[in-house]
Amino acid sequence: MAYDITAAALAAKQASQAASLLSTKEKNDALTAISRILVQQADSVLEANAIDLAQAKENGMPTVMQDRLLLTRERIEGIASSVLDVVKLEDPIGQVVEGYRTENGLNIQRIRVPMGVIGIIFESRPNVTVDAAVLCLKAGSAVLLRGGKEAFHSNLAFVRLMQQALEECGLPKELIQLVEDTSRETATKMMKLNGLLDVLIPRGGAGLIRSCVENATVPVIETGTGNCHIYVDASADLDMAVNIVFNAKTSRPSVCNAAESLLVHRDVAQAFLPICQKKLAEKNVEIRGCEETCKILGDLAVPATEEDYGKEFLDYIISCKVVGSVEEAIRHINRYSTGHSECIVTKDLDSADQFTAAVDSAAVYVNASTRFTDGGEFGLGAEIGISTQKLHARGPMGLKELTTVKYVIRGNGQIR
Amino acid sequence: MAYDITAAALAAKQASQAASLLSTKEKNDALTAISRILVQQADSVLEANAIDLAQAKENGMPTVMQDRLLLTRERIEGIASSVLDVVKLEDPIGQVVEGYRTENGLNIQRIRVPMGVIGIIFESRPNVTVDAAVLCLKAGSAVLLRGGKEAFHSNLAFVRLMQQALEECGLPKELIQLVEDTSRETATKMMKLNGLLDVLIPRGGAGLIRSCVENATVPVIETGTGNCHIYVDASADLDMAVNIVFNAKTSRPSVCNAAESLLVHRDVAQAFLPICQKKLAEKNVEIRGCEETCKILGDLAVPATEEDYGKEFLDYIISCKVVGSVEEAIRHINRYSTGHSECIVTKDLDSADQFTAAVDSAAVYVNASTRFTDGGEFGLGAEIGISTQKLHARGPMGLKELTTVKYVIRGNGQIR
Repeated sequence: MAYDITAAALAAKQASQAASLLSTKEKNDALTAISRILVQQADSVLEANAIDLAQAKENGMPTVMQDRLLLTRERIEGIASSVLDVVKLEDPIGQVVEGYRTENGLNIQRIRVPMGVIGIIFESRPNVTVDAAVLCLKAGSAVLLRGGKEAFHSNLAFVRLMQQALEECGLPKELIQLVEDTSRETATKMMKLNGLLDVLIPRGGAGLIRSCVENATVPVIETGTGNCHIYVDASADLDMAVNIVFNAKTSRPSVCNAAESLLVHRDVAQAFLPICQKKLAEKNVEIRGCEETCKILGDLAVPATEEDYGKEFLDYIISCKVVGSVEEAIRHINRYSTGHSECIVTKDLDSADQFTAAVDSAAVYVNASTRFTDGGEFGLGAEIGISTQKLHARGPMGLKELTTVKYVIRGNGQIR
Repeated sequence: MAYDITAAALAAKQASQAASLLSTKEKNDALTAISRILVQQADSVLEANAIDLAQAKENGMPTVMQDRLLLTRERIEGIASSVLDVVKLEDPIGQVVEGYRTENGLNIQRIRVPMGVIGIIFESRPNVTVDAAVLCLKAGSAVLLRGGKEAFHSNLAFVRLMQQALEECGLPKELIQLVEDTSRETATKMMKLNGLLDVLIPRGGAGLIRSCVENATVPVIETGTGNCHIYVDASADLDMAVNIVFNAKTSRPSVCNAAESLLVHRDVAQAFLPICQKKLAEKNVEIRGCEETCKILGDLAVPATEEDYGKEFLDYIISCKVVGSVEEAIRHINRYSTGHSECIVTKDLDSADQFTAAVDSAAVYVNASTRFTDGGEFGLGAEIGISTQKLHARGPMGLKELTTVKYVIRGNGQIR
């Protein structure tokens, strides 16, 4: 029988109504059961993962990707242990965000409530299946998970164990569901489940996110692409600037908060670029520079194209441009950035204030690495992604960002 | 030359960067100038409005609609005076929503900042042109207004006066722009201005909202359709219930917070329905009832169809159903409601708690009319619409809901 995503979403919606009424203790008990069963029955996940891996090898998947797909007993234990971290997070549901009484005696409260049904579309790493599901559960919502087909058996094994835990705790197993058909058609249908899916969160590369933005009719939260900039001001401490650029570019180049572009004030370009290049050369970073950069660095840089300034390399490559002022840096960033994270290195208060006020991105840094844009680093606990849009959530999204609010108004017969 | 909406949006985006840096005083001065010029040059709007009205008569527009379109000197003065109310509203921009220091010494602040460029698509009332524009200006954003073609000349006259005021104050006139081509093609293009339009807010009927949800690739906030319910519990004070139903249904049937559906507990149906019908008959309200309702009311009710329960009548019509329990009422509401406003009339604490917890709508009332769902009534000041979705804003949207936040992080060289 063909997989019916509408039926799955309807079941999720029904289950979500039960979930919205759960106490914190009931949710935490379920999370604890999930963690326990993942460890106890890790074998079933390892067996499923072996099928995915065999398939991946047969299809000639690059070894780096194979490693992302690989689960070991230790990795599963790590995932199970991170579920227990979610138990410790404060439950946002039921928080009174605001409360007041109006002139005519109405008691108005704005209360944090569950979203309902959350859809997540993600790519290869199977750990996302568990990470996302448990955050949604703690936030009181049902989740519909659509993972990549390379990890299908692993994802399904994880979901079955989580469902077993839900049932043990007397909760509907439809709270956590895997979309069991990984075709593009079903993904497109999922994006149009208005009335059933309250929000769709894509986690993955630029292509996946674009596809969701273009096709979805349900509300989408864009996440994750980061063409992050570091601007070295005329007044910068150049050693600090070298450290920040090196850290932001090379500590983990494949993630969205890594720096992709370097802007340098003309007054310090001659002094800064050679020492920065020398440090970056330790990790063989390729510098794609503007004409002035190339003039200063000679053949230690290659000429940048226009497209390079708009690119998220996710690699040991950085674009570089010499600018004449903080205003020019701001204009460049607001033109080319994806709105994720940007940094100014400066000693000048005016430059810092101007930069933080005018740069239109989720996170704007003064004298610190862009690599800090992360739910854990910002103190949100676990994170479901980093929003680069302006509606609902901007920057790292934790439990709170997976919820909504409603007004509850109590009266004694007021009419208008 | 053909109107180029992309060029208009680009100009809006550039202007928005200037607007984001304006002080509260600069914005209030511009609002005051707008209010003054609207009164001083009301004639130019009245002339333009006469053209729209002549056209409307020629096209045989119903007189109710013509009245919505009609502007008089008094109405313009009223609009100008409401601009001054916006001057008095607290400026949300620059508010520090949250601020803390991390272990490694980063100072993190989440700061309220302007959205950027806001698109509004609305239908016939020309006053929306001014109301929406001044709220967006106070919120520090540029606005692209796309009104209905019946009000085109009136809208354009309003926008020209507002632009004149902006220029007098030394602000870019592109902060407030009217989409000067009212074709459907241009509206569709507007819905896909990703990277230029930060949010699109449709204000109008169900058809307009559906079209935005289906066609837009920019983030949309759904507003306004309200299939609002009133549930009369077994324990209700029946006189209070009659008052609330009468007020919610008849005080202004054409608005989204008017009641459209009545649910009555079986235990009180026999006592309640006849007195409620009698009161509603004062305004000739048609009751479309379930079988039990019709049995009780005889030919004072007509049989309801399945569709009637899903309908926003916006008229002197109400659907009615007898239910066996508060649970059945909740199930019915969560199935048929548009998620706007619902009310329970009860004396029973458990029923009240159950209803407010489980009904999944923006505003849930205990013993008060649904007509209170309104920015003014809730104390937000002016309102741009009422969100019936769960992302970003839910319920009445004031100035705050027209803004976003960004993280500003200050360090002294921290790397990760």
